[in-house]
Amino acid sequence: MGKPQALGAGRNLPPHMKQYKKLNQDDIESLAKILGPGLLLAHGERKEKYARDYTEDLFFMPDIVLLPHTVEQVSAIMSYCHAQCIPVTPRGAGTGLSGGALPVHGGICLSLEKMDRILHLDPDNYQVTVEPGLINQHLREAVEAIGLFYPPDPASKGSCFIGGNLAENSGGPKAVKYGVTRDYVLNLEVVLPTGEVIWTGANVLKYATGYNLTHLMVGSEGTLGIITKAVLKLVAKPSHTALMLVSFNDLVSPCRAVGQLLKSGVVPSALEYMERSAVEWSQKLVPLPVALPEGTAAVLYVEVDGFDEDAILQQCERVAAIMETMGCTDLFLAQGHDEQERLWKLRRVCGEAIKMYSVYKEEDTVVPRYKLPELLLAVKEIGARYGFESVCYGHAGDGNLHVNILRGQLSQPQWETAVKAGIRELFGVCKRLGGTISGEHGIGWVQKEYLDIVMPPLQIALMAGIKRVFDPKGILNPDKIFDLHPTAQ
Amino acid sequence: MGKPQALGAGRNLPPHMKQYKKLNQDDIESLAKILGPGLLLAHGERKEKYARDYTEDLFFMPDIVLLPHTVEQVSAIMSYCHAQCIPVTPRGAGTGLSGGALPVHGGICLSLEKMDRILHLDPDNYQVTVEPGLINQHLREAVEAIGLFYPPDPASKGSCFIGGNLAENSGGPKAVKYGVTRDYVLNLEVVLPTGEVIWTGANVLKYATGYNLTHLMVGSEGTLGIITKAVLKLVAKPSHTALMLVSFNDLVSPCRAVGQLLKSGVVPSALEYMERSAVEWSQKLVPLPVALPEGTAAVLYVEVDGFDEDAILQQCERVAAIMETMGCTDLFLAQGHDEQERLWKLRRVCGEAIKMYSVYKEEDTVVPRYKLPELLLAVKEIGARYGFESVCYGHAGDGNLHVNILRGQLSQPQWETAVKAGIRELFGVCKRLGGTISGEHGIGWVQKEYLDIVMPPLQIALMAGIKRVFDPKGILNPDKIFDLHPTAQ
Repeated sequence: MGKPQALGAGRNLPPHMKQYKKLNQDDIESLAKILGPGLLLAHGERKEKYARDYTEDLFFMPDIVLLPHTVEQVSAIMSYCHAQCIPVTPRGAGTGLSGGALPVHGGICLSLEKMDRILHLDPDNYQVTVEPGLINQHLREAVEAIGLFYPPDPASKGSCFIGGNLAENSGGPKAVKYGVTRDYVLNLEVVLPTGEVIWTGANVLKYATGYNLTHLMVGSEGTLGIITKAVLKLVAKPSHTALMLVSFNDLVSPCRAVGQLLKSGVVPSALEYMERSAVEWSQKLVPLPVALPEGTAAVLYVEVDGFDEDAILQQCERVAAIMETMGCTDLFLAQGHDEQERLWKLRRVCGEAIKMYSVYKEEDTVVPRYKLPELLLAVKEIGARYGFESVCYGHAGDGNLHVNILRGQLSQPQWETAVKAGIRELFGVCKRLGGTISGEHGIGWVQKEYLDIVMPPLQIALMAGIKRVFDPKGILNPDKIFDLHPTAQ
Repeated sequence: MGKPQALGAGRNLPPHMKQYKKLNQDDIESLAKILGPGLLLAHGERKEKYARDYTEDLFFMPDIVLLPHTVEQVSAIMSYCHAQCIPVTPRGAGTGLSGGALPVHGGICLSLEKMDRILHLDPDNYQVTVEPGLINQHLREAVEAIGLFYPPDPASKGSCFIGGNLAENSGGPKAVKYGVTRDYVLNLEVVLPTGEVIWTGANVLKYATGYNLTHLMVGSEGTLGIITKAVLKLVAKPSHTALMLVSFNDLVSPCRAVGQLLKSGVVPSALEYMERSAVEWSQKLVPLPVALPEGTAAVLYVEVDGFDEDAILQQCERVAAIMETMGCTDLFLAQGHDEQERLWKLRRVCGEAIKMYSVYKEEDTVVPRYKLPELLLAVKEIGARYGFESVCYGHAGDGNLHVNILRGQLSQPQWETAVKAGIRELFGVCKRLGGTISGEHGIGWVQKEYLDIVMPPLQIALMAGIKRVFDPKGILNPDKIFDLHPTAQ
């Protein structure tokens, strides 16, 4: 981790911030009374982990950390903070990549980690009701034990919380077939910034009853309300899976192969892209079960799943035929669950592995998927011109490419100025190709300076207007996505 | 059609309505200048069809009807009406079932029927960009011609517009496998009530760039903006389809069979329910290709589709085995496309057929699907108690049951009072079962009196707050979903 960055460093404070109250001893006692003993952290080291998430090396210390157990406690906290005008930053597992959980103005960090239960598993209706602090993987295991499946699987699934997945509308490798978190949300219990509690919808597959507040809440990055319960949709667990690792000697052919594959009618359950350097760094943490052919520039993961083994083998053959046509140099079919899991583990540690090598900025670019080769060439060309090294990997089937820009030996001015100019140019390319600046990580704190590239002031003003309807005092996760008073920037 | 109902009959006008300007000759001339000759209808019979939709026998005459061809014209119209405070009701094909397109306060009916083009069909990215006046079926045919598929298929697909489908978040039989309209929307061009124009998102499969205005717009029933272009997602067209008609001797067994079928891992592409009377009325318009066994009380349509004929036959066998276990008396497998199409046509004319028999109120109930039998029994019990006859059919796979309450020989007071009390009780059952009062038809004009059953005032106030952000003067499709000033009711 780098040097802690000072509160609000490099930014002019918008006028509304001056209205925020600085916590005093009375406030701390009142909040401690709501929670009971041990659930309010006010001092030193125990608070420190709440000052960071997975975004670069950013560090913002909260004044206090609250660990509520119940929706009633969350509601009482928000009522108090609304009345007192104290800023509150909700937090899941802190695995976010856009700084959404960072308490950038200090105040309260409200961690949902103690609300981690599965409240109701309903196999008749293929539904499950959970609390926000439940770890994604724990949900998966619980439903798979009864033959059901919760598809959204961010790389951090072993530690990230469902609440954070909902706030960011997380994706993951399975999205190409199964969709993202949004597609599995039926109904949410939400504590509003005022402390009031609503359910956003109903426990049904089809909902046409007024504005869809469920879909508004999903992906709103903890700025409109605190999700305290979620009713999620499940599907039947596929009984069979096959996973192939396909090698190519250049960076662009695998992207083209993705386009061809999807046009063939094959619906893969994952379609991931990794540059060779991403594989090599990851291999330091997880050895690959197969040697990559010499000259490999990039690989594709192609997974197919289903309920019929023969049909899956047929699909594998179609995949192989298409990959050969598109110039692959090798195709490795993982044997059995363990080998599949090793391959997936390698893919998942990618971010962690690169972080061991260097601090990096992760850009979550997304374009119509057939434009991926064009995007990838632009990344490398812009990097060469602005003098930064990048490692690319991501969800090729969705046109969602994670561009990891390495700090390496770059000086502070290069890192803060040249790299940012390069990112701005790259996002301009995304926009021109019909895409946008985030596919699954959100805007949070670090990407909002780029939001103007894809969004006119009018649209940001509409979002700010919605924010004010839910949070008239602007106390909940302030200045994430956009500053509440865009004219004050 | 029944007797025209007077403007605002039976309702107190909320205070804001007094601010609306009544159109004068100057306004009409200004609007005619925006549009050019022939695109403004101000008189008599030509206006009459715009006074109705498919909802009961409601009739509200607009002052004028505008037929814009371009987004610039829509924008200029809204700028003018915003400045002048003239109410505007957007209209698709008028096939809606909740009165959303009815100009309940007179003013302008803005019909999108002239904006009916496919602007860009992009087979590489599986995307299509269309105008709102395009008929659903025309879109289907255009994309199927190149091997692609647009799944959402409301019963009115032969006449309804994509714009209306988006406004209402329409479903249809395919939703059980493929999802509803919302699931196929990537990006929307929208003219705001102020006349300003935005794109809500990007042309990508994954989007995490600020609040999701695309999802807010879908299902907002034309109250937040006028959709002028839509970028839609397509999928590969399944090459094979099989359709079964399954008969049962009681009303509830088919609902139970649906639950069993979905637990088996079979993913049908349609799963429809029809009471015997619905079949019989529909048969007057479309003969059934098979005789129903004597004693049949209800039928299920079970469709499976895919890319592999053998796999589909295997699925049919599994379906047949489950249906037998659940007590079906007959299973008819449609032979070939024509027989399938005849069966589907029968299902689609259902609403029209019942309308020939009687005016009816169509309630779009939806519950968690395993609760369908309970809902169905409640419908019949409540009907018996309140003295109304009902015909039920709908999307059993989604728990979405259309309850058609027949006027028959009911007196005006029975129709207006007893039936409404019965509906209120029925919606209370939906709520208790975890469901809601509309799955795919929307709230519009006729269901808003029931909204309080499923939504507390706080939630309606949040929706009204969002409405004000987009439409500060409340001129766009006023008093649909909720009255703009709920406290004034």
